[in-house]
Amino acid sequence: MKKLAVIGPGLLGGSIALAWQQHPGWRVALWARRPEAVRELQELQIAEECSTDLKAMATDADIIVLCVPIGAMPGLARELSSIIPAGCLVTDVGSVKGPVVAELAEIFRERGRFVGSHPMAGSERTGIRAARADLFEGSVCMVTPTGGTLPSAAEDAAVFWSQLGCRVHEISPAAHDEAVALISHLPHAVAAALVNTVADRQPGAFAFIGPGFRDTSRVASGPPEMWAEIVQQNRVAVRQSVEAMIEKLRAFSTLLDRSEPGPDTEMKEFFTQAKVVRDQLRLPLH
Amino acid sequence: MKKLAVIGPGLLGGSIALAWQQHPGWRVALWARRPEAVRELQELQIAEECSTDLKAMATDADIIVLCVPIGAMPGLARELSSIIPAGCLVTDVGSVKGPVVAELAEIFRERGRFVGSHPMAGSERTGIRAARADLFEGSVCMVTPTGGTLPSAAEDAAVFWSQLGCRVHEISPAAHDEAVALISHLPHAVAAALVNTVADRQPGAFAFIGPGFRDTSRVASGPPEMWAEIVQQNRVAVRQSVEAMIEKLRAFSTLLDRSEPGPDTEMKEFFTQAKVVRDQLRLPLH
Repeated sequence: MKKLAVIGPGLLGGSIALAWQQHPGWRVALWARRPEAVRELQELQIAEECSTDLKAMATDADIIVLCVPIGAMPGLARELSSIIPAGCLVTDVGSVKGPVVAELAEIFRERGRFVGSHPMAGSERTGIRAARADLFEGSVCMVTPTGGTLPSAAEDAAVFWSQLGCRVHEISPAAHDEAVALISHLPHAVAAALVNTVADRQPGAFAFIGPGFRDTSRVASGPPEMWAEIVQQNRVAVRQSVEAMIEKLRAFSTLLDRSEPGPDTEMKEFFTQAKVVRDQLRLPLH
Repeated sequence: MKKLAVIGPGLLGGSIALAWQQHPGWRVALWARRPEAVRELQELQIAEECSTDLKAMATDADIIVLCVPIGAMPGLARELSSIIPAGCLVTDVGSVKGPVVAELAEIFRERGRFVGSHPMAGSERTGIRAARADLFEGSVCMVTPTGGTLPSAAEDAAVFWSQLGCRVHEISPAAHDEAVALISHLPHAVAAALVNTVADRQPGAFAFIGPGFRDTSRVASGPPEMWAEIVQQNRVAVRQSVEAMIEKLRAFSTLLDRSEPGPDTEMKEFFTQAKVVRDQLRLPLH
């Protein structure tokens, strides 16, 4: 029997554990920091082994996936680096890759085969009770090797995520961070800013919200501490994305000034460009 | 038998006609400008009578609902004002109320009982084939009387929309326009600006989109000409909303500069405020 050790019992860790239990020839271990979390995992039967004992979970693992907040990864990685088998595949699910990959790659330089990953699945719901075995099906997972990554690590990580149902893309950590700033971190900033704008100006207007506001703002219900950490970790690329968004809104505002009531050609073009682009996107199912 | 005449065969007009067919004691007439549209309506059996002949549709109507683009309303209203029975209830579904209500109220001053309405149901899908009888169920409809509106018109319109499944709110046209600028027009501008920002900076990033981007951008797939017209009609309130949104994004960008990587207290507060507000909203089902 091979062994997968999932480090961290949140939505992603729990969903990986649930999904991987269905793979024959593997057992799944799930580590959590708090004894209460372990008891909950045992009740829910998310994994075959659940414990707060990192050594017991990881010492004989073939694959380790770090599913804790980015800030907690280096500390756990240092502990793991003296525990794990030499050839163990180690990856993580952090939403920012540049600084995280650099730090973890250094920690696992002598022991373990590390490569960064970012499965782009999730929900505004969090925690183990939102976990589900099909969370990754049809979603994109980015695997982020660097010049120093062992080719076998990137290959094995790609196979692992594919088996969870992901479409896997390989990309450098820096290119990843620019891309997610635009397509993930910016939408979160925009959704939160939208809710805060209405709350400041006319909270009574919330009585009238329809499906448009509901969906445009959905990710504003995500976990605040996690998103504050993510945007700070990726601050350079996020700031550039936010500035570009502000420029677009300025251009929109300028178009409002230009013409008489009725459809303006350039304003229509602003909406048309967006519609044409979006209608061609391959949209995820969940 | 009483008669409802729906003027305009789009998503809203078609859905009203479909839903109202289920009311006993009423027949439903649906006017369209183009003969091909009338043939399609007849095939789909959306209403009992379908025609391009405005007089035949409206001359014996008890309720008339204008479901054409805002710019087309005054012309049709002038035709209707010499056709309809004196006591006929007239309302519309325009997304902007200030200028529209002022113009239509003047046209129907001597004949017909006019009051503005705005049912906040819809979809990024448009046209008669997206129509469905349950479109309005659980949605909000704003009815917008002015000082000159007959009380019976506002009351009868409220009953009409309630029977379609709407939760009805009464509000002045000006307050309506400020509210929808924030909760409807701003989200459309933001969604289109978001798509256009990514398309300009790194279109390759679209390969990695997840459910967050999908939902935040959803309304960018709406009809461009309609939205260009709506934001121009409501330009003053929309501009104020966009400027307020830009200020919020600037504040966000400033927070990014303040601290070392890791969660910053004020950045966390930015996301927390949005989450707390949004989690308390009564969200529409569809």
